Amino acid sequence: MLRLGIVGGGQLARMLALAAHPLGVRVQALCAKADESAHRVMPVRVAIGERLVDLRALADDSDVLTFESEDLDAGALRAVCGSKPIFPPLRALELSQDRLLEKHFLRGLGTPLAAFAPVETREDLEGGLATLGLPAVLKTRRGGYDGKGQVVLRDDFDVSHAWTHLGGRPLVLERLVRFERELSLVATRGRTGEVRFYPLVENVHVDGILRATLAPAADVDPRIERLAQDHARRILESLDYVGVLAVEFFEHGDELSVNEFAPRVHNSGHWTIEGAETSQFENHVRAVCGLPLGSTQPRGPSAMLNLLGALPELTALLAIPGAHLHLYDKSEVPGRKLGHVTLCAPDRRMLAERLACALNVIERGDSDLRRRLRLTEWTHSNSSA
Amino acid sequence: MLRLGIVGGGQLARMLALAAHPLGVRVQALCAKADESAHRVMPVRVAIGERLVDLRALADDSDVLTFESEDLDAGALRAVCGSKPIFPPLRALELSQDRLLEKHFLRGLGTPLAAFAPVETREDLEGGLATLGLPAVLKTRRGGYDGKGQVVLRDDFDVSHAWTHLGGRPLVLERLVRFERELSLVATRGRTGEVRFYPLVENVHVDGILRATLAPAADVDPRIERLAQDHARRILESLDYVGVLAVEFFEHGDELSVNEFAPRVHNSGHWTIEGAETSQFENHVRAVCGLPLGSTQPRGPSAMLNLLGALPELTALLAIPGAHLHLYDKSEVPGRKLGHVTLCAPDRRMLAERLACALNVIERGDSDLRRRLRLTEWTHSNSSA
Repeated sequence: MLRLGIVGGGQLARMLALAAHPLGVRVQALCAKADESAHRVMPVRVAIGERLVDLRALADDSDVLTFESEDLDAGALRAVCGSKPIFPPLRALELSQDRLLEKHFLRGLGTPLAAFAPVETREDLEGGLATLGLPAVLKTRRGGYDGKGQVVLRDDFDVSHAWTHLGGRPLVLERLVRFERELSLVATRGRTGEVRFYPLVENVHVDGILRATLAPAADVDPRIERLAQDHARRILESLDYVGVLAVEFFEHGDELSVNEFAPRVHNSGHWTIEGAETSQFENHVRAVCGLPLGSTQPRGPSAMLNLLGALPELTALLAIPGAHLHLYDKSEVPGRKLGHVTLCAPDRRMLAERLACALNVIERGDSDLRRRLRLTEWTHSNSSA
Repeated sequence: MLRLGIVGGGQLARMLALAAHPLGVRVQALCAKADESAHRVMPVRVAIGERLVDLRALADDSDVLTFESEDLDAGALRAVCGSKPIFPPLRALELSQDRLLEKHFLRGLGTPLAAFAPVETREDLEGGLATLGLPAVLKTRRGGYDGKGQVVLRDDFDVSHAWTHLGGRPLVLERLVRFERELSLVATRGRTGEVRFYPLVENVHVDGILRATLAPAADVDPRIERLAQDHARRILESLDYVGVLAVEFFEHGDELSVNEFAPRVHNSGHWTIEGAETSQFENHVRAVCGLPLGSTQPRGPSAMLNLLGALPELTALLAIPGAHLHLYDKSEVPGRKLGHVTLCAPDRRMLAERLACALNVIERGDSDLRRRLRLTEWTHSNSSA
């Protein structure tokens, strides 16, 4: 039995464990605290705080290591990776930790990106704005997630405000992309170089936090699907990547540009647990353990809704046909991801009905999300998937 | 968060836990030993050996109790069920523990059964044979499973041999049913009385041990499906049952007779993990926790193969399209159930191809199982499901 050590004990480690158990892979997680999301579903090791000691202890007990977050000390990981293999490769982690390195890397691959400029000083910012113009987005190079560490700049007031808020840290300025929708591609690459792609999905964010994923995305031009796969394949092959990789795209007209990538299982791939033949979690475990990859075909249309901050009435949610609940064993904190629900249906019209029911239970007054999901259009969509 | 205590720590407890975690139900298992199948996937409590003390401790830590095996002390369970609810009802457990009580109960419901006679003495056996004739089956009233504790009687030699082997224990003699195939029905009933049925499936046994399940069973007459559901519904309602119940049937001509039932999740329902919209494990957890039941619709045709005694080459198995592996974390012992694999496919012809590949990996020289699965007939079957 192969022993897989997971650095991190959040919901991604939890769902990796639930996928690893049936495969007979012995998982263990290194958690920051004793009561993290993963702690009831697998054996966990609680960090004592000295990163290198913690990682060495995990590595000693494992045949292969993986991680569930970008918020890690890549140097400490690199120090232990000599003793045990770590997948995905640490270079992918390091790139994803620094927006500027990531952009240079992607530009080097010929990937279309929003124009950008590095910003260290107020002068850099003024110079960048002179080149890129407004509107733009100012982001910290490191540590941003779920919309944190970034400010949209539309006028001079925004610029001053953003500098007060973010100045003094290494930053990157990006031209704001006017996109029609945000798509993401979850890909997986095995140790032998085998690559599989889930279909492109559409993500709906509110205030920078992912609220919903529609899978597959409706009416995707096959050329766009191929383009997204080409971009992802270049990243995978250039890094000799192993495991699941998520790439976020902006779609504008018949163009795609890459927003960022995440070297791990991803919230926009949670729908795959029921919506695809093999989940992203199982395929990540298969990949890093050197097992053959499973089919990434969707079983039909599905939609994933995040459960944020406070749990809705679960009985009402579970009574919806095709509803599959996933709770993360976390306490209620405003804005916190506590779980998700995936809705499956035989066709998109029925999926829209079920999604409307679920939104009534989960979102109550939130007409914004409903509007952005454009449910009423679905009935007229000629996409069969 | 509801706390569910499971009596038993085998593979059924393991798969119940994997289904309970996403629902946010806090499961705990009472295991006989520290290294049982369930021990890495959930918190476990190891029995000290004093049944009532062990059960009380589990009950104290739980809001509701369930069990994964019939090999239990029903009296001890009854002693603790005053403090916490136990589902399925203990009367169902007691009936399933004693073939004679079970048969009297089923006959009382008007369920068709093979003719039978209780046997305590050699004279009872001779009397029973005079009434029922040969061939017949002599079974222990208690403790038989996987073909153990039963002998087929075809001639006088068999009768003497069987008596030497089984005599002295309470027995039951049954007329041998000449059936075309063995079908089973997995049903689930919620706390509100809501009932759902998975489709009838075909089970293939070799030497009394389940080797394969085909789901749904091919070419089932809708009248037979309704009949099976009627028989199961009578059992469920008569016992005010809550949870998953499996009923085994013999199909002969256009008739059905009941072989036995099991008051728990069942090996012939393992295909539901990928093959149905909601698994038997999730529906059992939903039922006993008072949650709404999930859809029991099959997602398409599937087949489950048990992995017995020694593990096959897993890489070869996982490379088969639509193959889903489930290992139970048990050491290799001849005949022991170590795991199962479920094969899914868009249609029965492709399923037959995938099944043939899996049999090559798992069974190697076993042409008997292959023959009994009648794979070659599938291509000509007009059943679309």
